[in-house]
Amino acid sequence: MLLQKGQKLLFIGDSITDCERARPAGEGLFNALGRGYVSLVDALLQAVYPELGIRVINVGSSGNNVLDLKARWQEDVLDRKPDCLSIMIGTNDVWRQYDTPFITEGHVYADTYEATLRSLVKETKPLVSNLVLMTPFYLERNEQDAMRHTMDEYGAIVKKIAEESDSLFVDTQAAFNLVLKDLYPATLAWDRVHPSQAGHAVLARAFLNKIGFEWNRG
Amino acid sequence: MLLQKGQKLLFIGDSITDCERARPAGEGLFNALGRGYVSLVDALLQAVYPELGIRVINVGSSGNNVLDLKARWQEDVLDRKPDCLSIMIGTNDVWRQYDTPFITEGHVYADTYEATLRSLVKETKPLVSNLVLMTPFYLERNEQDAMRHTMDEYGAIVKKIAEESDSLFVDTQAAFNLVLKDLYPATLAWDRVHPSQAGHAVLARAFLNKIGFEWNRG
Amino acid sequence: MLLQKGQKLLFIGDSITDCERARPAGEGLFNALGRGYVSLVDALLQAVYPELGIRVINVGSSGNNVLDLKARWQEDVLDRKPDCLSIMIGTNDVWRQYDTPFITEGHVYADTYEATLRSLVKETKPLVSNLVLMTPFYLERNEQDAMRHTMDEYGAIVKKIAEESDSLFVDTQAAFNLVLKDLYPATLAWDRVHPSQAGHAVLARAFLNKIGFEWNRG
Amino acid sequence: MLLQKGQKLLFIGDSITDCERARPAGEGLFNALGRGYVSLVDALLQAVYPELGIRVINVGSSGNNVLDLKARWQEDVLDRKPDCLSIMIGTNDVWRQYDTPFITEGHVYADTYEATLRSLVKETKPLVSNLVLMTPFYLERNEQDAMRHTMDEYGAIVKKIAEESDSLFVDTQAAFNLVLKDLYPATLAWDRVHPSQAGHAVLARAFLNKIGFEWNRG
Amino acid sequence: MLLQKGQKLLFIGDSITDCERARPAGEGLFNALGRGYVSLVDALLQAVYPELGIRVINVGSSGNNVLDLKARWQEDVLDRKPDCLSIMIGTNDVWRQYDTPFITEGHVYADTYEATLRSLVKETKPLVSNLVLMTPFYLERNEQDAMRHTMDEYGAIVKKIAEESDSLFVDTQAAFNLVLKDLYPATLAWDRVHPSQAGHAVLARAFLNKIGFEWNRG
Amino acid sequence: MLLQKGQKLLFIGDSITDCERARPAGEGLFNALGRGYVSLVDALLQAVYPELGIRVINVGSSGNNVLDLKARWQEDVLDRKPDCLSIMIGTNDVWRQYDTPFITEGHVYADTYEATLRSLVKETKPLVSNLVLMTPFYLERNEQDAMRHTMDEYGAIVKKIAEESDSLFVDTQAAFNLVLKDLYPATLAWDRVHPSQAGHAVLARAFLNKIGFEWNRG
Amino acid sequence: MLLQKGQKLLFIGDSITDCERARPAGEGLFNALGRGYVSLVDALLQAVYPELGIRVINVGSSGNNVLDLKARWQEDVLDRKPDCLSIMIGTNDVWRQYDTPFITEGHVYADTYEATLRSLVKETKPLVSNLVLMTPFYLERNEQDAMRHTMDEYGAIVKKIAEESDSLFVDTQAAFNLVLKDLYPATLAWDRVHPSQAGHAVLARAFLNKIGFEWNRG
Amino acid sequence: MLLQKGQKLLFIGDSITDCERARPAGEGLFNALGRGYVSLVDALLQAVYPELGIRVINVGSSGNNVLDLKARWQEDVLDRKPDCLSIMIGTNDVWRQYDTPFITEGHVYADTYEATLRSLVKETKPLVSNLVLMTPFYLERNEQDAMRHTMDEYGAIVKKIAEESDSLFVDTQAAFNLVLKDLYPATLAWDRVHPSQAGHAVLARAFLNKIGFEWNRG
Repeated sequence: MLLQKGQKLLFIGDSITDCERARPAGEGLFNALGRGYVSLVDALLQAVYPELGIRVINVGSSGNNVLDLKARWQEDVLDRKPDCLSIMIGTNDVWRQYDTPFITEGHVYADTYEATLRSLVKETKPLVSNLVLMTPFYLERNEQDAMRHTMDEYGAIVKKIAEESDSLFVDTQAAFNLVLKDLYPATLAWDRVHPSQAGHAVLARAFLNKIGFEWNRG
Repeated sequence: MLLQKGQKLLFIGDSITDCERARPAGEGLFNALGRGYVSLVDALLQAVYPELGIRVINVGSSGNNVLDLKARWQEDVLDRKPDCLSIMIGTNDVWRQYDTPFITEGHVYADTYEATLRSLVKETKPLVSNLVLMTPFYLERNEQDAMRHTMDEYGAIVKKIAEESDSLFVDTQAAFNLVLKDLYPATLAWDRVHPSQAGHAVLARAFLNKIGFEWNRG
Repeated sequence: MLLQKGQKLLFIGDSITDCERARPAGEGLFNALGRGYVSLVDALLQAVYPELGIRVINVGSSGNNVLDLKARWQEDVLDRKPDCLSIMIGTNDVWRQYDTPFITEGHVYADTYEATLRSLVKETKPLVSNLVLMTPFYLERNEQDAMRHTMDEYGAIVKKIAEESDSLFVDTQAAFNLVLKDLYPATLAWDRVHPSQAGHAVLARAFLNKIGFEWNRG
Repeated sequence: MLLQKGQKLLFIGDSITDCERARPAGEGLFNALGRGYVSLVDALLQAVYPELGIRVINVGSSGNNVLDLKARWQEDVLDRKPDCLSIMIGTNDVWRQYDTPFITEGHVYADTYEATLRSLVKETKPLVSNLVLMTPFYLERNEQDAMRHTMDEYGAIVKKIAEESDSLFVDTQAAFNLVLKDLYPATLAWDRVHPSQAGHAVLARAFLNKIGFEWNRG
Repeated sequence: MLLQKGQKLLFIGDSITDCERARPAGEGLFNALGRGYVSLVDALLQAVYPELGIRVINVGSSGNNVLDLKARWQEDVLDRKPDCLSIMIGTNDVWRQYDTPFITEGHVYADTYEATLRSLVKETKPLVSNLVLMTPFYLERNEQDAMRHTMDEYGAIVKKIAEESDSLFVDTQAAFNLVLKDLYPATLAWDRVHPSQAGHAVLARAFLNKIGFEWNRG
Repeated sequence: MLLQKGQKLLFIGDSITDCERARPAGEGLFNALGRGYVSLVDALLQAVYPELGIRVINVGSSGNNVLDLKARWQEDVLDRKPDCLSIMIGTNDVWRQYDTPFITEGHVYADTYEATLRSLVKETKPLVSNLVLMTPFYLERNEQDAMRHTMDEYGAIVKKIAEESDSLFVDTQAAFNLVLKDLYPATLAWDRVHPSQAGHAVLARAFLNKIGFEWNRG
Repeated sequence: MLLQKGQKLLFIGDSITDCERARPAGEGLFNALGRGYVSLVDALLQAVYPELGIRVINVGSSGNNVLDLKARWQEDVLDRKPDCLSIMIGTNDVWRQYDTPFITEGHVYADTYEATLRSLVKETKPLVSNLVLMTPFYLERNEQDAMRHTMDEYGAIVKKIAEESDSLFVDTQAAFNLVLKDLYPATLAWDRVHPSQAGHAVLARAFLNKIGFEWNRG
Repeated sequence: MLLQKGQKLLFIGDSITDCERARPAGEGLFNALGRGYVSLVDALLQAVYPELGIRVINVGSSGNNVLDLKARWQEDVLDRKPDCLSIMIGTNDVWRQYDTPFITEGHVYADTYEATLRSLVKETKPLVSNLVLMTPFYLERNEQDAMRHTMDEYGAIVKKIAEESDSLFVDTQAAFNLVLKDLYPATLAWDRVHPSQAGHAVLARAFLNKIGFEWNRG
């Protein structure tokens, strides 16, 4: 297990991370962590590693792209001084190119995405014990699908930056691909983007496995 | 893994099972399974065993005691023909003796509890592949506490009936006791009864381990 | 124009037809016809053919499959004695096979779909001046996609029944395919099923062209 | 078709344009364009000319008169740099003279109306490819009716300014007059001002025909 | 003053009488009489003739036509045994012919209107001390307007029946015509049907003057 | 009739004047004048003197005492430049002495009341054609009742200031006393302060009679 | 103390007893007993005599008069088998004579009141250990006030029946009169009927003193 | 009785004091004092000592700890110039250590608690006639329970400061302990912190007894 006793674990991202979390930051009781994979990660850490006392904080915000993250990085990441940071961003950067193609201000193309994410990682890596980079994903089996294709490109950028920076890398698309062999996308998400609880379990498990979580301990 | 491809897994119980599930029965998309351990079990089964296509159904109802279960057993359990059935009941049977001691009609004492639960189990065991009996629990560390003491008695009854009937037995109190070593009850439930997501993760994990779930497969 | 002065034009279908129509039947002022293609057809008929005084009625119901239509056919179609009837059904018959694959009671397979729709058409064709059969559709470009593939099969059944019964046939999938060349599905519908206003315009135009509507008359 | 690929088409006006559009500007999915003629224009442009990728924006505001338009012209029109601009204003300028005759601050008389509209047109015409001026209208058949009479005067001002400035001119009153031959005003609008969907179809068709829209292309 | 101490005065009609009255019958405190002319009549009777103790009851119902009145006449009029009865009906009988011309079931034509109203009056006149018949009205100055013309026909029917039956006759259209000389219809009602408080004052005054109310007494 | 064509008539006061009026000022359609005597005055002026075109404005505010009026006098009275002004204040000045006797900051005693009201009247009288001073009132028959007694003192102050300043004086208590001979206070107001519609009719009639309103003219 | 260990104490009455209690009967946690004197009595009994375990039940219903009590007596009193019963009724019997004098069906005059209450008492006295009769009251100092005068008559009837039947008698009017010497009625109740918490404390104290409650014990 | 005629009695604390009080300060009618012990104290003071005219003010705020009190001490205590002040604080200072152990910023440890409370008392004692210090409490019978143990430590600090400063000391834990002998904690509070009405009666009685309240006087 990579996490140490008493550490602070911060998640940042878009609506998939947000999931109705509390404001200004999601932590503590009463579903303050939202209803998604962050809450599942926290629940399993408390249930299986209660003695570690990991403090999980959710600062995901619906609709965010990587530029939105940059704009609130100081306040929502650096000022909170996390020991461990997880970033999953890119869905909206890509999606806006496909659902509102005429409104080009809302698009974040690959070069901007890469440069911005890299700079955030570079600035933050030295300040944390663990940095986890999770790819964005699209719940579509067909790799030739235009939006899936673009999402894969953004996922490859995340992988490249993870390797450059020696961060932990979580390939969420690969994790979902395993499940999509047996389940049609509509079973996991009506819009192929916002997962059901089962989809969030896929995300939580991929994350936990990467940080050395052991289900059967204790 | 005890569950077979295409089987139907039904959960019945009180508010800890219910957790805002859909009516008349909780199953399918859009959080129809509620926000508790049933939803977690379903999510992890879909995420880790997608090829099994297990159909999970939640018919827990807030406020129920074992007599309420008996009253709707035909309609909510037998008529649905589950392959696997999980029962967790007893919280309200005990709690009403402590929070409204003057309203004795609401109390279900141990002899009635035992006789009723035994008869439901006897009637149903032959009709299902797997029957899981989960104890009620109370998030109180002190075994001498009056309500914890009574709850333990009811848990012992569940254990006895599980053994008699050769059912699978899940000792939820024992599972919580491990966590309570490190966490004060208020961290898991303000009222010592309705668990946080972490508490539901404890329940889901205890259940899944009993039916042979393997986190690391696949 | 196939419609005659004073005729009653009835639309039946699922949520794509319903679109928040009034109950028990949608007709008259104050958006009683809903917010979808039925309202557009009505608006354009009134705007371009005001002297015809066509009475449009919407009895689409969200979630319906062909068996639901059969169950209310007497009350919602025959008793209303339409001069012209339009049917668009099949989305849910197919979709439930893909979004809740474990809940098989909700699936309507091709043979049942075909037999049921044929019997409704046979019974009703002699009673109306015009019968319009619209295919269901799926806003997915990839014909190899499993659900698109199934939807195309159901569309072919509609075509066959239209030909057999000499009904007017509207190939909505073909109409959408033209638009999907230029627009990614997410532009027209987040869930690939419920269209935006632009998608409803595609449907309304396909319907109107089939009944001889002339935009430039008058 | 006067519109070119990728152009931005902006609509400004009062409640007849607004129709519950999103704020600060109406564009994109989820009925952001409102429920009126602007949404219809957008839907038909996407359905029939999907390859053009026209970006439609709605900045109509309920209750506005021409002075309100002037006050937000920089922010809502000029700063948005539309390629094509459509203006329909005057209803409230006239209506307030008739429904609250004692509150004279709310009245905009013909000379002010004319001078203000002319100055807005003069300033903006050089900046756009196409400028469309739509008259206000009143759903009243009787030309001797006092308010209809005044509205016709304002319509004549719009026509004069369109001619002076070589703008495209849409005579909405004339378009409605054709329909009013067959339909009593109450069929189209309970208050003779806010049209039903059929009324909005009259407006959308008049607009589209003026910019060269062809229903049967493609 | 025609009303006697302790008498019961009942008003029946459509939405113009209803005005959000209490159910099942509007009488007593807390705006139970609604917000229209009935409440004004009651208020002025109490204020000016407090010693008479007149009991006013409102059983107007929005959307009613004369056939709807007939259907509830026993329960809402006869069973309540009023001493004085006021009827104002006909608006919807006429309006539906103009706002939803295609839905002919909703129309009540003049012959049915006349026969039904006459039979109600004939049956009830012998049972009450005073019967007041108020015409329907339309807030339109132009007598050649189609709907105003029809409304005048229905008003003439009311007058004829009042004369035949020796009932008190209140010509509400005539009362409004006086005001419409100075005020445009939109000042009194946005839809020309549902009056503002000023319009209700016109109705209340016409009614009160007919029953001998003296403003300056006491 | 003291009011002239086109004059502006402003009412200021407390909750009895306010009655849910629109903000910032109550005037125009849609019950903007509230549900009390101001609305009745406006309705009767429009109904009986439509040719005068009197503009009625309501700036009463719930909970106000005379000091609250002073604080907003410039903005709500002087800046609006009324031709005729009506003031009815004092209820809360007195009531707070009786319903929250311990909270003395909320009390306005007679000397402060008199001085403040006199100064407002002195400042404003020269600026208006007509100034109407209405007494506060208390719907209690017993003159020896403590609160009624105090209210009468405040009424006497209003009378004195009206005489000094040659303003029109409306003795609302006297008007109510006539009605209270026949009706118990609870019939007119459950709390003896906020009148029913009948009570508001008493107020409106007293006001209108003072300014020369003739019910039977026209 | 007249109450014995484990006894059931039932309160019946009108809105003063009801105070938003739970339905069908008010007892147990979460303010099920309402917000009035019943809740205060229960709270003080639990706080001062916790070992007695008195079960308090509230079946007061807003708007009830003595005839309403009679209509539900079997179900709400006899079937619940109380050991001790408290009745406080009469407010509405009297009040309706004063606030809606014209609606005579709502009045319950003294003879009916007396006969009905006596018969209920006679039937029930033998079935309970203690029967408490509380008078209705009116928060008005002036005994010559018409409604106070009538209320005193009804109070005298309660006293007479209490004496006849050897029931415990609580003179609530007398208890309030002591407080009214120092506090004006409006301090205790805006409508002179529904008491503030202070008024409910007066009622609870009068009741408790009658049954032998000792504040300083324990 | 320690309170004198006309004195102002201020209560400050956390949610147990707050209980939905009005803002900015709770006093006066309409439950402005909230639904807890403060309201009970006020009600009993008015009911039993109406001639004293004690003015009770509630400035408790949910979620507050002693540092929050310090932050608003000037505005909410000193500026209001109370004659008598009651402080009950500490619940949240302790509770946060147990329900969100990982979020250490929310914890107020004993040394900070003691120093802060002492300084507030020292500053304020000379300014008031009576200062009442109430301990925090925890509705748990087991003194070895971790949170009960800590709460007792904080209670001991309150006692020490009360003695040092010669303030009145109310041992709420001791008052509850008497009741807990007979009632299980869940009867008084589901979360062992927020009391039922019975629990608030325990608090009110302990407070009143300390200031010399006599239930049987008058």
